[in-house]
Amino acid sequence: MALYDQITIIGLGLIGSSMARGIKEEELTNKLVGYDNNPDHQVQIREYKLVDELAPDLLSAVENADLVILATPVGAYGSIGELIGSRMKAGATLSDVGSIKSAVFEMLAPHVSENVHFIPAHPVAGTEQSGPGAGFPSLFHDRWAIITPTENTDQEALEQLTKFWEALGSNVEIMDPEHHDKVLAITSHVPHLIAYNIVGTARDLEEVTKSEVIKFSAGGFRDFTRIAASNPTMWRDVFLNNKEAVLEMLGRFSEDLIALQRAIRWDDGDALYEMFVKTRRIRKQIIDAGQDENVVNFGRRHDD
Amino acid sequence: MALYDQITIIGLGLIGSSMARGIKEEELTNKLVGYDNNPDHQVQIREYKLVDELAPDLLSAVENADLVILATPVGAYGSIGELIGSRMKAGATLSDVGSIKSAVFEMLAPHVSENVHFIPAHPVAGTEQSGPGAGFPSLFHDRWAIITPTENTDQEALEQLTKFWEALGSNVEIMDPEHHDKVLAITSHVPHLIAYNIVGTARDLEEVTKSEVIKFSAGGFRDFTRIAASNPTMWRDVFLNNKEAVLEMLGRFSEDLIALQRAIRWDDGDALYEMFVKTRRIRKQIIDAGQDENVVNFGRRHDD
Repeated sequence: MALYDQITIIGLGLIGSSMARGIKEEELTNKLVGYDNNPDHQVQIREYKLVDELAPDLLSAVENADLVILATPVGAYGSIGELIGSRMKAGATLSDVGSIKSAVFEMLAPHVSENVHFIPAHPVAGTEQSGPGAGFPSLFHDRWAIITPTENTDQEALEQLTKFWEALGSNVEIMDPEHHDKVLAITSHVPHLIAYNIVGTARDLEEVTKSEVIKFSAGGFRDFTRIAASNPTMWRDVFLNNKEAVLEMLGRFSEDLIALQRAIRWDDGDALYEMFVKTRRIRKQIIDAGQDENVVNFGRRHDD
Repeated sequence: MALYDQITIIGLGLIGSSMARGIKEEELTNKLVGYDNNPDHQVQIREYKLVDELAPDLLSAVENADLVILATPVGAYGSIGELIGSRMKAGATLSDVGSIKSAVFEMLAPHVSENVHFIPAHPVAGTEQSGPGAGFPSLFHDRWAIITPTENTDQEALEQLTKFWEALGSNVEIMDPEHHDKVLAITSHVPHLIAYNIVGTARDLEEVTKSEVIKFSAGGFRDFTRIAASNPTMWRDVFLNNKEAVLEMLGRFSEDLIALQRAIRWDDGDALYEMFVKTRRIRKQIIDAGQDENVVNFGRRHDD
């Protein structure tokens, strides 16, 4: 059941290539076109047969598309929008998968023709790997896809995009872009920044060697290194483009950390204990909500 | 091959019960005695048949033991040491599994008879679960067991304890207690504190609801919740008893975080990118060193 006659994906990294695989598997289009300016990606896109047609340039990629999905790092959206915004088919939909939404409006909206439906979206899914080889079609299964329409968004186009994400296996949530950016700042952006930061701090210690950090990482540190291995370009662009919400959440985080630090310095064991009991409950709720799996130690080997 | 005629484990939570299972499996003693003051644990210890004898009190638990292992939260060590330190057999070994080592010396050494070998140790292994039911014998396989002897430690007793941990599947590392506490502060204690902290910050937000935090946790947050679900009593005791090293590492962490925050505020994308590329390499090294598994996304479901 083709939802769009032609779908074009710009950027076939982890997310774009997972979508391409899911679109093929679910037969959501009659023609899947891809465009990627990275020569390594181009080779892999052909090798994995990810699309029906790999376009040689942006304009030929989008000119006949009924749905165009931007899946590059968000830092590239502005220049792509400038090129394609007025060259898409009347009635087509332009969407994306970026981890921020307010800045995406600002970057793209000025370039998009009035007869194109511009509806940003963000699938809350991913792994620490990057590139066309890292994708897999079930990446979006049982994950949330957040769509951020405005009050002027065409309802039919929105319904079609909702069906599209549901067909890829996601649950769809409609959200205001500013609220999206706050929710994601705390559930995704700040956790990534903190993970990058602790890994950096550990790396720079003089008294404790890097080999010791690696050797004894099973004490907890290794959990942080997974998300600190995510795509550097993508994350640079996220932080630069969700500055306000990230700085606000970081402020709260640091304030709370100072309070814990003070409790340690002044031997306030009750404050620490009370805090640790509360946070323990959150994991159970995440598992109950189906947002993580109920396997101990992330299912690491347990050979008995 | 029994390494000790009688082994006594005080406290059969995750670590103690995993040791009991491993000791049985490898037949490392002729008699395994346990003591635990938690009534729930007592029921489970019998149910799982974890020991040959569950002792009714501390003194009868230790009086005939050749090896006594303390596996309670470290906050209880002082009072246990006071009771048993002068009541153990001459020539026996007293060891532990606590996540800190300098404070353990201070708490126990004054109570231990001269004819008892006091050799602290710390297996760097664990899961987010607690209690006798959570243990499994392979918990220590291919993990590091750090032993922190002094210059006066009896070499034969040290060799025997080394064999014991190797028989449980661990690699043994000999370390100075102060250095141990610094290494673990960065590889384990500060990561746990940060995880507890971000989960707490997320929980307290007014604009973003707790249900949204749970719903969209797949964006990265859920990785932190695993270690923030660890035993609250154990972790309270760790922070209170490794204060100096934890506060120092926290200071470095906060300093580095402020630098990242500043880079975001001033749009310094190059600084962010450079940092994110460096940290990415650390995960690869941890996997190459066999300290984490090379499975994407912690092996979460990937149904294709």
